Amino acid sequence: MTDTHNRSGASPPASKIVSPTYEGDFVLGEPLLLECGASLDCPTLHYAVYGRLNAARDNAVLVCHALSGSALVGSWWPEIFAPGAVLSLEHDFVICINMLGSCYGSTGPASMNPQTGQSYGPDFPLVSIRDNVRAQARLLDSLGIRRLRLVLGGSIGGMQAIEWTIQHPERVQRTLVIGVAPLGAMGLALNHLQRQAIQHDPEWEGGRYLPQKPPRNGLALARQIAMVSYKSPPLFEERFGRRPNRNGEDPWQTGNHGSGLIGGRFDIAGYLDHQGQRFIDRFDANAYLAILRAMDTWDPVRNYASPDEAYSRIRARVSFVGISSDWLFPADAVRRFAEEIRAAGANVDYREMNSDHGHDAFLAEQAELVRLLQ
Amino acid sequence: MTDTHNRSGASPPASKIVSPTYEGDFVLGEPLLLECGASLDCPTLHYAVYGRLNAARDNAVLVCHALSGSALVGSWWPEIFAPGAVLSLEHDFVICINMLGSCYGSTGPASMNPQTGQSYGPDFPLVSIRDNVRAQARLLDSLGIRRLRLVLGGSIGGMQAIEWTIQHPERVQRTLVIGVAPLGAMGLALNHLQRQAIQHDPEWEGGRYLPQKPPRNGLALARQIAMVSYKSPPLFEERFGRRPNRNGEDPWQTGNHGSGLIGGRFDIAGYLDHQGQRFIDRFDANAYLAILRAMDTWDPVRNYASPDEAYSRIRARVSFVGISSDWLFPADAVRRFAEEIRAAGANVDYREMNSDHGHDAFLAEQAELVRLLQ
Repeated sequence: MTDTHNRSGASPPASKIVSPTYEGDFVLGEPLLLECGASLDCPTLHYAVYGRLNAARDNAVLVCHALSGSALVGSWWPEIFAPGAVLSLEHDFVICINMLGSCYGSTGPASMNPQTGQSYGPDFPLVSIRDNVRAQARLLDSLGIRRLRLVLGGSIGGMQAIEWTIQHPERVQRTLVIGVAPLGAMGLALNHLQRQAIQHDPEWEGGRYLPQKPPRNGLALARQIAMVSYKSPPLFEERFGRRPNRNGEDPWQTGNHGSGLIGGRFDIAGYLDHQGQRFIDRFDANAYLAILRAMDTWDPVRNYASPDEAYSRIRARVSFVGISSDWLFPADAVRRFAEEIRAAGANVDYREMNSDHGHDAFLAEQAELVRLLQ
Repeated sequence: MTDTHNRSGASPPASKIVSPTYEGDFVLGEPLLLECGASLDCPTLHYAVYGRLNAARDNAVLVCHALSGSALVGSWWPEIFAPGAVLSLEHDFVICINMLGSCYGSTGPASMNPQTGQSYGPDFPLVSIRDNVRAQARLLDSLGIRRLRLVLGGSIGGMQAIEWTIQHPERVQRTLVIGVAPLGAMGLALNHLQRQAIQHDPEWEGGRYLPQKPPRNGLALARQIAMVSYKSPPLFEERFGRRPNRNGEDPWQTGNHGSGLIGGRFDIAGYLDHQGQRFIDRFDANAYLAILRAMDTWDPVRNYASPDEAYSRIRARVSFVGISSDWLFPADAVRRFAEEIRAAGANVDYREMNSDHGHDAFLAEQAELVRLLQ
């Protein structure tokens, strides 16, 4: 039941990828105190930069990545660097920082816990969106960047972008937030499903799995659950319909085909399995859980007396983009979030991206996104 | 991490339940040849009846149940028996038959395979929707019922209802089909996720688990995935929002609480876990997989030269109901399905149920459904 036919992936063609000017690590010189009460000893932030910082140091742009992204924004969001698009390699100094808890270079569950000499694994503390923003601010301090022309991101990246405007109002001139609002009950439900998929895998071992023996089935299923929530029924219908899997399997066959799973697949199932397999080769299960938790717990008004107290801090001009077919962060929820911030006196605009690509549209339809923003 | 607080379930209060006039088994006197090429040796159909068959034998109504339903329609759909509602205990003879492959009395994976002397388990053959209808027709033959005043059902029950009108056009006067169309790519995707949840459970054992040691975590997760697709974001938002679990868990806690899962839950997660637990006490994993496969493979025009050839057979008046917030079978898909059948010349009407309850609305908002049908 392996896929012998090629399936198009979400990754852009290599020819489009934009290479960073520099990619490296920044180590905080002191512990990072976390909202949850724990702290991280001198964590590492892995980051990439594109373009050059000008003498006035006023051309910096911060891109915040989503759940499974990395600091290499030029690899996963290349079209926003196109001439005349959102960012300019000539004029901007673009920086993107891998989130704490991730597995692309910054301190995360696979990193060594200095207190035990072993990897954190499931004991990695909850590093919230706000904690991430605080760490990112220190990295920018170290580069002598006080002010950001623009902070932008989609999904969890957008959570960080809004958090920047609230925590560091004097440092952000403009913010662009795509396909995000505080996670609603349905989003929390979907994350709960994914968490179970991973933690019920027998290879999970309470999070103490060996790097060479991770909970592959569980992480693959979690990714598939996520993919379903990132896409849309019309997109799946158009691409896959009710066709049998392209490798010739017959959904009417119910026998065991030797893969451990029973029965022939439809094409959509073959696609999802393929996406799951691709993901387990590039992501760590504990890191996935850590970032889901940051996503779940994000509440921009937490510890403020009122939403108004939080949002009235904002000085940046804030642009929101909702995606018409987004199931995870419905456009209506994004619009209401934008209105709530506007009601507190902030300079807010809202646009809607008309797309069948669901939540993924900000990555899958970059040219459309760029057009909408122009 | 157990739930100490009561959670409202989907089941109606006991006071509303309508008791059957008779509940019993019918055994086919010959093998049931299946579409897949296999056959079932003299399978049993468990059924329940409500009211009395009149002398003319022309007051029979067939109710077809959905995925996890049983023959006891008076227990799971009591309000359609209310005075003046859809069915009349005084005038109708209502019959409901447990699907083959299910675990509520009809032959299914837990039944003994006469060829091996052991339960079928994962070797239970694919019994399609059409196979089920053929078996149901034999049961009605045995009761001397040639003609049905009405065949009705929601979800998979609606698949059976439409199949009845195509396979036995002369026997059906009217059909009522709620929240269903041939399963689209998104529905196939959701079923694929559920299948993996069960089949990756270490207790699954290739489907040869012992009755006392079933794949509980896997079946519970499958049920939760299904629940998410049966409900809607607005309903979850209203009921659960972003509140922590009602037993006092703190979603900011990430430690292991002894349950094997890590971290405090939100209320929506506690609800889903509760639904999963309720389900594993009442349903069998192999039966669940068998019915998912029947749902996946249902194609009412299979083996006909064209949709028109299939649908032009229909003589019944066909009423469709779409549910505005249905994610699994979107109202648009139901409406298009109705239009396709109408285009073949059948007498078709379509109504839409305006509800935030998602696919489940036909069970969760029975009074609304009854109102719409009056």
